Amino acid sequence: MPVITKTSSTNSMRMFVVKYLFFLLVLITFSPIFATRTPFKKSEPRKRIVLYYHDILFRGNYTANATSAEVTKPTGLDQFMQGLMVVFDDLVTKDQHLHSTPAARAEGLYFYNTKTAYSVWFSYTLVFNSTEYNGTINIMGADMLMEKTRDLSIVGGTGDFFIARGIMTFQTEAIEGFKYFRLKMDIKLYECH
Amino acid sequence: MPVITKTSSTNSMRMFVVKYLFFLLVLITFSPIFATRTPFKKSEPRKRIVLYYHDILFRGNYTANATSAEVTKPTGLDQFMQGLMVVFDDLVTKDQHLHSTPAARAEGLYFYNTKTAYSVWFSYTLVFNSTEYNGTINIMGADMLMEKTRDLSIVGGTGDFFIARGIMTFQTEAIEGFKYFRLKMDIKLYECH
Amino acid sequence: MPVITKTSSTNSMRMFVVKYLFFLLVLITFSPIFATRTPFKKSEPRKRIVLYYHDILFRGNYTANATSAEVTKPTGLDQFMQGLMVVFDDLVTKDQHLHSTPAARAEGLYFYNTKTAYSVWFSYTLVFNSTEYNGTINIMGADMLMEKTRDLSIVGGTGDFFIARGIMTFQTEAIEGFKYFRLKMDIKLYECH
Repeated sequence: MPVITKTSSTNSMRMFVVKYLFFLLVLITFSPIFATRTPFKKSEPRKRIVLYYHDILFRGNYTANATSAEVTKPTGLDQFMQGLMVVFDDLVTKDQHLHSTPAARAEGLYFYNTKTAYSVWFSYTLVFNSTEYNGTINIMGADMLMEKTRDLSIVGGTGDFFIARGIMTFQTEAIEGFKYFRLKMDIKLYECH
Repeated sequence: MPVITKTSSTNSMRMFVVKYLFFLLVLITFSPIFATRTPFKKSEPRKRIVLYYHDILFRGNYTANATSAEVTKPTGLDQFMQGLMVVFDDLVTKDQHLHSTPAARAEGLYFYNTKTAYSVWFSYTLVFNSTEYNGTINIMGADMLMEKTRDLSIVGGTGDFFIARGIMTFQTEAIEGFKYFRLKMDIKLYECH
Repeated sequence: MPVITKTSSTNSMRMFVVKYLFFLLVLITFSPIFATRTPFKKSEPRKRIVLYYHDILFRGNYTANATSAEVTKPTGLDQFMQGLMVVFDDLVTKDQHLHSTPAARAEGLYFYNTKTAYSVWFSYTLVFNSTEYNGTINIMGADMLMEKTRDLSIVGGTGDFFIARGIMTFQTEAIEGFKYFRLKMDIKLYECH
């Protein structure tokens, strides 16, 4: 009897070593999966918010309800307003109506950066201060106005959007000369904490 | 005897299969934890640096020790300086004294972006070049001056702050009209390499 | 016989508990490795692209092939052009020749931010639209012109550079007064998806 138990125990020890090595093998095989950062899938943002950005521009003629102001004048060499820089504190709404309850403010600047096409460069902060969200989202990138959709980078966030990253897609909804325009913002956050 | 060993071995094989399946189950159960990025905890930055930012503004009247300069003028439509843009190479110290040994330089721009409140938008680089730190931290965000603390995004870094991310909290310490102001910068890095 | 099998089974059960506890121990020991983000190694970017940035500046005198334009004037208090701000839509090529096939456009702004040295602050977007790459890379940081190499932050990207992060190293290649300069851009992406 004792001999048998011993044999069984030796067997178990051998099994244990084999299984332990197997376990280590599995660990080593799968470790790149554990250690590597999860790649983000473009089609699967962790959070998505659609908002509308309204810009009412003041350029010398007084506009009582203007939310942005020209700070530098275009060079005048072209029709594409190269050199016009605007700082803004613009309204952001959940639907397309300017007079809807504001969902956020958009604070920052844009400027027309080229003399060969309507193209604008944006850098701004979405400031949320509502029952729904509290915090900011920081965005920068080029906005080639003639393309149907334009992707800008979400480079950071604070509060409810603590260290967020993602893509913000602009789509032009309405343009009234250089007085008013409305952009659809499709905010896709791939990393949020 | 051989029969008994065989039975024990068969038992072990069965145990092995059971335990292997159990191991796989554990792996599958916990894999989201392994595969998901560690969430950053707001209360636990990996590095924290408190510094003081001093801005001495030149606006037409010559100021020998000015470190920033007005580049665009306010629209003049409001009391909140909307349209005033400033570029700077400002002093950064470890304590509140302007004449302390500089810890870094702050290089970038800010502008007053609204006509309804004192609100500024910042984008700048902290440039460290000391025995303590070598490298840069890049920051952007809205700075609503009337709030006690304001969070901006740390969107990147170089050198000792290689690809850093985090939050920089501004707190106003002193304001002397539009000539001088001092801000406390509470730099919290959640990701650094 | 049944007694022996029972003993063996009891042994196996004990072994199972021991090994399971051991497995848990290993899991707990190694879990920080699984849970922590992989640190980026500076010397091992996942993607590297070298490009050349050409700036042809318009400052009042008409330059037919200018790609950038002065929007604010220097204060005039110093020799280092503090206050000069430029918006651009500059050519980016794969080699040092201005007239090579463009690899991308660089859209954004820079400004001279100090009165004590030639130092520029950049924020811009590389816009790729070729057979090789489609998408954008967003960059910001300080550019101390007198240093041999300067690191700026890659803070985001879109398209082929979806949520990229990294370092972009500038190196001055040529300067012709304030009319033309060429910078080498060494783009190192440490995170791309």
